[in-house]
Amino acid sequence: MEPLRIAVAGLGRMGRRHVQNLIYRVPRASVVAVCSTEAHELEWARSLEDYKEFNVTVYGSTDVHASQTLAAIKKGLHVLCEKPLSTKMDEIAACVDAAKARPDLKVMAGFSRRFDASYRDAATKIFDNKAIGSPFIVRSNTCDLLDNTGFFVRYAPRNGGIFVDCAIHDIDLSLWYLSDPVPKSCWATGTLQHHPELAQMNDVDNGVGVVEFWGGKIAYFCCSRTQAHGHDVCTEITGTEGKVSVNVVPRASNVVVADKLGIRNEVQPEYWQRFEHAFALEANEFTESVLRDKPVPLPLEKGVKVMEIGRALQDALLTGEVQRFNEKGERI
Amino acid sequence: MEPLRIAVAGLGRMGRRHVQNLIYRVPRASVVAVCSTEAHELEWARSLEDYKEFNVTVYGSTDVHASQTLAAIKKGLHVLCEKPLSTKMDEIAACVDAAKARPDLKVMAGFSRRFDASYRDAATKIFDNKAIGSPFIVRSNTCDLLDNTGFFVRYAPRNGGIFVDCAIHDIDLSLWYLSDPVPKSCWATGTLQHHPELAQMNDVDNGVGVVEFWGGKIAYFCCSRTQAHGHDVCTEITGTEGKVSVNVVPRASNVVVADKLGIRNEVQPEYWQRFEHAFALEANEFTESVLRDKPVPLPLEKGVKVMEIGRALQDALLTGEVQRFNEKGERI
Amino acid sequence: MEPLRIAVAGLGRMGRRHVQNLIYRVPRASVVAVCSTEAHELEWARSLEDYKEFNVTVYGSTDVHASQTLAAIKKGLHVLCEKPLSTKMDEIAACVDAAKARPDLKVMAGFSRRFDASYRDAATKIFDNKAIGSPFIVRSNTCDLLDNTGFFVRYAPRNGGIFVDCAIHDIDLSLWYLSDPVPKSCWATGTLQHHPELAQMNDVDNGVGVVEFWGGKIAYFCCSRTQAHGHDVCTEITGTEGKVSVNVVPRASNVVVADKLGIRNEVQPEYWQRFEHAFALEANEFTESVLRDKPVPLPLEKGVKVMEIGRALQDALLTGEVQRFNEKGERI
Amino acid sequence: MEPLRIAVAGLGRMGRRHVQNLIYRVPRASVVAVCSTEAHELEWARSLEDYKEFNVTVYGSTDVHASQTLAAIKKGLHVLCEKPLSTKMDEIAACVDAAKARPDLKVMAGFSRRFDASYRDAATKIFDNKAIGSPFIVRSNTCDLLDNTGFFVRYAPRNGGIFVDCAIHDIDLSLWYLSDPVPKSCWATGTLQHHPELAQMNDVDNGVGVVEFWGGKIAYFCCSRTQAHGHDVCTEITGTEGKVSVNVVPRASNVVVADKLGIRNEVQPEYWQRFEHAFALEANEFTESVLRDKPVPLPLEKGVKVMEIGRALQDALLTGEVQRFNEKGERI
Repeated sequence: MEPLRIAVAGLGRMGRRHVQNLIYRVPRASVVAVCSTEAHELEWARSLEDYKEFNVTVYGSTDVHASQTLAAIKKGLHVLCEKPLSTKMDEIAACVDAAKARPDLKVMAGFSRRFDASYRDAATKIFDNKAIGSPFIVRSNTCDLLDNTGFFVRYAPRNGGIFVDCAIHDIDLSLWYLSDPVPKSCWATGTLQHHPELAQMNDVDNGVGVVEFWGGKIAYFCCSRTQAHGHDVCTEITGTEGKVSVNVVPRASNVVVADKLGIRNEVQPEYWQRFEHAFALEANEFTESVLRDKPVPLPLEKGVKVMEIGRALQDALLTGEVQRFNEKGERI
Repeated sequence: MEPLRIAVAGLGRMGRRHVQNLIYRVPRASVVAVCSTEAHELEWARSLEDYKEFNVTVYGSTDVHASQTLAAIKKGLHVLCEKPLSTKMDEIAACVDAAKARPDLKVMAGFSRRFDASYRDAATKIFDNKAIGSPFIVRSNTCDLLDNTGFFVRYAPRNGGIFVDCAIHDIDLSLWYLSDPVPKSCWATGTLQHHPELAQMNDVDNGVGVVEFWGGKIAYFCCSRTQAHGHDVCTEITGTEGKVSVNVVPRASNVVVADKLGIRNEVQPEYWQRFEHAFALEANEFTESVLRDKPVPLPLEKGVKVMEIGRALQDALLTGEVQRFNEKGERI
Repeated sequence: MEPLRIAVAGLGRMGRRHVQNLIYRVPRASVVAVCSTEAHELEWARSLEDYKEFNVTVYGSTDVHASQTLAAIKKGLHVLCEKPLSTKMDEIAACVDAAKARPDLKVMAGFSRRFDASYRDAATKIFDNKAIGSPFIVRSNTCDLLDNTGFFVRYAPRNGGIFVDCAIHDIDLSLWYLSDPVPKSCWATGTLQHHPELAQMNDVDNGVGVVEFWGGKIAYFCCSRTQAHGHDVCTEITGTEGKVSVNVVPRASNVVVADKLGIRNEVQPEYWQRFEHAFALEANEFTESVLRDKPVPLPLEKGVKVMEIGRALQDALLTGEVQRFNEKGERI
Repeated sequence: MEPLRIAVAGLGRMGRRHVQNLIYRVPRASVVAVCSTEAHELEWARSLEDYKEFNVTVYGSTDVHASQTLAAIKKGLHVLCEKPLSTKMDEIAACVDAAKARPDLKVMAGFSRRFDASYRDAATKIFDNKAIGSPFIVRSNTCDLLDNTGFFVRYAPRNGGIFVDCAIHDIDLSLWYLSDPVPKSCWATGTLQHHPELAQMNDVDNGVGVVEFWGGKIAYFCCSRTQAHGHDVCTEITGTEGKVSVNVVPRASNVVVADKLGIRNEVQPEYWQRFEHAFALEANEFTESVLRDKPVPLPLEKGVKVMEIGRALQDALLTGEVQRFNEKGERI
């Protein structure tokens, strides 16, 4: 079987890693084109006309995901788009509509944690083994290591705010483990501790949000840009008969040092170290769905409700008011 | 030095344990009277006239704490009153006023976690060692083992609701570690999973609440009556330079079993196993403050703000609305 | 019931702690006499004639345990003697004989770990719950924090060597969990890393020893005087169906700090912090056995085989040769 | 650059996994030939004449490693040979001599743990960061899950005994972390708990061994074929200023389940799950050393001393006698 010919849009810090993964960890894929960063990225989207025969993965910054995805679909290319699709609900809707109009194309939402071995194991335990009865509360954190290089703050204006950029995976996990519940209301609050510049973008560097779903389920999130010890991402799913947790004590490896300070382990510095294998599996499964014409593991529309909740939390943060949804999950 | 003569009001499940602690773990105290449970407890408060020469600890059910405390103060007795003083703010105020009117008496609030070695160690690390910079987020959980005996549900009507009965220690800890911040707003939600009978008392068996303080500090709480694995109480204090956590992985002891199921440890079944030594230290420090005429470690008024926040969370739970405070911390 | 009147021989570092425990943690005991350290301790043994009416606990240094115990038995006093009874087998035999000749007296061996909650829990799991099938290997470590004060080295000439002083509890635990197996052979080796002065006493500051028992059971030990991180004592019992371990990850408390170095916990600095509650329970059970005329939990002769194995390991260390026992457990 | 053309000898359980790794995880390698198991393997060695242009990895059973390696070297092929090279010292010597006679060929010893991220991190901490001062004791365990299928027992006659087959990696790790010390003496003992059939091969299913090195360093090992909970491989390196440990609490992932039994994690069932990434890195580094003509990370002679110590431990097990080496490390 011929390898899948893949073009990569976005060569920022993460894009370069994804390319490396595609080359070394996805045997049936072949990277045939990449595009350089920033200004060139939109340019690249336009130039796609010349590359009809291959498929696309979109790993650029959030604000160009949607335009690149749309451009690729219009050219008849398969797309794997990293989360989040966009920070604007109308752009998301346009992409989802475009994808639905082309059922022959594989258009996949890149919620990478769904491909992590531990999160999958948690799902197996919950859904197949019934290890915790009926799940009803999810706690999930995405806490980044403090970035003193200025990189994070420069990128911040384009990320849609902490609950969109940072909690998006946590929201997605809560929908997964709670079996796609419908949001009812949410509230959030936050604080600025290290990056006062975020105030002018109406954002915070640490936030806590709670989502109540119709039917008595709850998810709550803590997001942080300012951890001292590393990239600390954990999730706990509580059910009627038990609790499954993932990475509540983060460990970079199984090495432990005992010395005058006590006993300690290190923590992964970034999400790449935590999720490197998940990204590889995600790309492999996308490749397989195209080559074998199977449904993608995560259709693009999966990202819509996630983003609606993220936006509602961000609105709650800004206004201080509870945001509410009707029983269909529509914002009131 | 003569031992402190102590009378104990309340001989429920906990009261009996406290008596045992007073006898065996508080060398300078002598238990000279106890009162039997339930109906007799209010009776006992009236009968205090006959026992002028000793001091009182109040370990009964929440709804009689205030009346017993008030009665004891009126008789000129020192009092150690278990939390919460009352679920009614006016009763609390009356007790605090009565205590202030008698500065010669030692009247102490029994927030037992303040006497736990681990919580004290966390405070030492935070305040003395500056181990985490400036603390700004507290997460704290009080999650009880599911009680299938019916005891919990029978007692529920008198406990003031999950955020008053269960989160009260977590709120107190957040005030401690955040250096007595002033509440600004709060919100909460909850669910009923095992005890539908609680609906008629406007209560839930699992709840999540968030408190925003003036000045950019945050506390959030998860309370549960329905854990499968034991009494799971944990607290995390995040600061600008690090995080201190207490009991995030609860362990009944340092015994671990490895077998076909993997590697596991047991968890304490109840808060008594978790806090037995804290209760002993609390009683010892109360005893010492009376015998040596020193200030009590936790004056009664410490409990007022804690209860106001607990009540506000309970109101948020019932109404679904954000509860707000002005900059003096008064409910709006 | 009248309290048990106790005299304490030995007021070294540990003796003072034991006295405090007896006063504050053993309600039915009353400390009526203590003796000051060093030269006075043998003096004290002679002076016992004046104190016929009370009982004795012996917490001095190893080299006077036997003479004090013997003196006390001769005066008709009950004795709780800290391990090890002596480093000389004939002194041990003399004490055991003296105790057997006075069945009216309670003479107890103080293997304090047998009174530790975790070690008891391990025994319950192994013997009552059959959690690991049939136990056949015990690994047990006693690793002390490096002592830079010179205290340890000064005391070293009297302690009998690392496998007698340090491994004695580990040997006792292996006999407990392996159901009193008979030793067949043993070998040991060691090294000097921090305390070269020990060479002239034919001792080491780190040693590893292995004991083979008749019937296919094995125990192995690592002892150290030079740990950087604290007092690290752990035990693993492997059986045909699983493994129970105690304290394999030592933790001073359930407090954890996350900062630039990663995630860490502190470790107890000394065995007192690890076994304080065990010492209290030991004293309580001794007191109860006297007051209620019940058998002592650990009769003095329990210490004989333990010491024989400790001596054999020390001999193996010195000679480099395997030490062997016949099927009755007698040295060949 | 053309990929490295690799032939794989040995398609047993592990061989098949190695082939998969070579295909999917070693981008610059190309598997051009494999050989089926058992009888065919020696056949395969002879047939190498036809395949002059490629390189060889040898993953078969221990008893044919040497003959296959020798055959490949004679044909002028590069070789990556899985440990142990052989159980016979003369065969090992023949291979090492053959490799030395062909310095143009890359002949590498496959001690896969040296390629594990955690073991490498431990080495970095010890040698680069000086995290523990001077290392002097290594404890290392290789404990396999009990195999009830009969596979292990069938394979046992060819594996050289527990200290050769099972402890070989632990011995290698001790040489690594103790900086190639010279053995002085060793002793071992063992027991049969689940596989009595091993008695006729003079082997045990659980063994403990101690190695003393010249210069005051010590390594000790526990090997088991009969664990209930999984593949439990751990290593602790103690130095003068601290201790580094790897995998002392084995965890299959970062998933934890809390339920009525307490809090637990699962353990990897086999070494493949534990070392899958290490095998991939090993194959990648071998490939790179050939393609770029760099020295192999682990030359074949590295395996000689390891095997000598393994054999000495096995001899100690069989004879009950201490085995000794002179200061050059030669058996006495």
